[in-house]
Amino acid sequence: MEHTSLSHLCTVRLNETHDGVVIVDQTQLPRHEIYLTLTSIEQVWEAIRKLKVRGAPAIGIAAAYGLYLSARNIHADDFATFFRKLQHQGHYLATARPTAVNLFAAIERIERCAQAHTDAPLSQLPDLLRQEADALRNEDAAACHAIGTHALTLLQPGMGLLTHCNAGHLAVSEYGTALAPIYLGQEQGYDFRVFADETRPLLQGARLTAFELQRAGVNVTLICDNMASLVMRRGWIQAVVVGCDRIAANGDTANKIGTSAVAILAHHYGIPFYVLGPTSTIDLHTPTGSAITIEERDPSEITSWGYRHPMAPEGIKVYNPAFDITPAELITAIITEKGIARYPFTELSEWKVNP
Amino acid sequence: MEHTSLSHLCTVRLNETHDGVVIVDQTQLPRHEIYLTLTSIEQVWEAIRKLKVRGAPAIGIAAAYGLYLSARNIHADDFATFFRKLQHQGHYLATARPTAVNLFAAIERIERCAQAHTDAPLSQLPDLLRQEADALRNEDAAACHAIGTHALTLLQPGMGLLTHCNAGHLAVSEYGTALAPIYLGQEQGYDFRVFADETRPLLQGARLTAFELQRAGVNVTLICDNMASLVMRRGWIQAVVVGCDRIAANGDTANKIGTSAVAILAHHYGIPFYVLGPTSTIDLHTPTGSAITIEERDPSEITSWGYRHPMAPEGIKVYNPAFDITPAELITAIITEKGIARYPFTELSEWKVNP
Repeated sequence: MEHTSLSHLCTVRLNETHDGVVIVDQTQLPRHEIYLTLTSIEQVWEAIRKLKVRGAPAIGIAAAYGLYLSARNIHADDFATFFRKLQHQGHYLATARPTAVNLFAAIERIERCAQAHTDAPLSQLPDLLRQEADALRNEDAAACHAIGTHALTLLQPGMGLLTHCNAGHLAVSEYGTALAPIYLGQEQGYDFRVFADETRPLLQGARLTAFELQRAGVNVTLICDNMASLVMRRGWIQAVVVGCDRIAANGDTANKIGTSAVAILAHHYGIPFYVLGPTSTIDLHTPTGSAITIEERDPSEITSWGYRHPMAPEGIKVYNPAFDITPAELITAIITEKGIARYPFTELSEWKVNP
Repeated sequence: MEHTSLSHLCTVRLNETHDGVVIVDQTQLPRHEIYLTLTSIEQVWEAIRKLKVRGAPAIGIAAAYGLYLSARNIHADDFATFFRKLQHQGHYLATARPTAVNLFAAIERIERCAQAHTDAPLSQLPDLLRQEADALRNEDAAACHAIGTHALTLLQPGMGLLTHCNAGHLAVSEYGTALAPIYLGQEQGYDFRVFADETRPLLQGARLTAFELQRAGVNVTLICDNMASLVMRRGWIQAVVVGCDRIAANGDTANKIGTSAVAILAHHYGIPFYVLGPTSTIDLHTPTGSAITIEERDPSEITSWGYRHPMAPEGIKVYNPAFDITPAELITAIITEKGIARYPFTELSEWKVNP
């Protein structure tokens, strides 16, 4: 298994002394592999906001551990006070990024865990919350493997696959979601040819997907986002696999900006378009994609981030949305750990009962 | 006319002593406005190859002047020798870039001009060729104005327009082609809201289109290529205007990589997609787009060009095509100086009789 070399790349985990969250700083990859130990909820908030940790599942896991860290420092004489302070920290953490539902879901899960232990000694609560965060992490990891297994049944050896942004090991601290069938296929000799959209403006495709697939020995070719149409026209792509930041009840899916364009191109060229993610990404409270808040980020990400010099004229107006919505009718299948759903995606509400 | 401030921005012209071609180095914009005087055909070749001068019409004009420069230095005792040497230089210059037909057409035109003067004193030939190059330049400039006038009849005040790459002043040394109706509209108070795709990997949209439209006082917003779908979905775009590097006889159009994706998106969202260019860009010798050679450029343009540090892992495989083909059936209209053509574009062969 060539890809075991990835396992040392730690996306997000608790340190051994249980007083810090360790992440690899994804803004520094692939040039530097720098590990950060976050010891306060403010540091976790900043790491999420600045994309040092990113990918919907990884954000959720980081947030869960972040709340645990904060719980360790809560001074309270009774549960009500403890919980009020915990909720306050949860509200704060939820402001780090608005689109991925996993952030909010993880915060709610940790809070529910606390509420389930109103009678426990206050001193034991942080450990209980830590176990809940561990459980979330383990469930997401198991989900990745199951997603890969289901998705692989839709693919054939030798296929050309296109992916956008990064929904791999670095997004979930396991096989990833969109990349899970690629890693599983790699283990089983599927010999996929993968094309990775670079994914402007922050180049998660060039910096992260190309990096982790190359390291795993996968045949991967980097292209600019605007080259996907030509690559499809040339007949090099037999399926598109992408992750997701939030799946609405009707199957509309929020994912990295540009995903909807890839879906429209795939539809035009008659190529299957697959969305892969754990059921934790499904949000039944959101009826359709139009109800999903789309994060807008700083113009400098487009005009100057990573460049030696600014690449646009000073004072230029910029629109920098971080996500877009792919309508359900353009999605060939949504693959979760529970199985494969197809339009009109009635399985989503069977698979997930929102708390 | 706010945009007159552009007129000092010289895309390509002969210098006053007629022994050098002056260009603004487009690889340095918008940060530096550096003018280069090219005095040999090798320098012209390099300027075209390295995109210091770019845009199909501008490449043609630079090549015509380049051949003139070379003709000045040809030593020959008879016309046949002169012409053989001129052709040799023409063959060389034609290797600078493979896709834009204007390069080859300009070289042929200069050679035909020489052939039409077999009896002229050899010493007069360079001046005759220079006048032919001037004529080409003036015709393209006049064509730009006519293209803008025709195209403006398709647009309404207040419209949102999307453009890709740069087909403006900097591509033609006049109003440009795709941007011509925007400049004319600006003069007439049309108050367009323009979205400029940044156009990876070399960012002609961010560096050149955003720059020249901003300087002209046009309301322009910069986006990444992968944001066009969301911008269209939001209802902000009522028409797409793009230039072209070669129009095949059937209307298939080669233009900057990503153009076909914009056309597919526009089709999906029901937005008119307009190709604007002078008839010099039509190539009746090319029956369909599949006969057009697509230039592939260096991987470093994607992985490291302009960046402070490389943005992809070392040794990553890269595919870097500079153009793609937009099929005729996705083009709402092709607008040249002769008028407006619609599918199946029979006007193209009426407008242009290839020599």
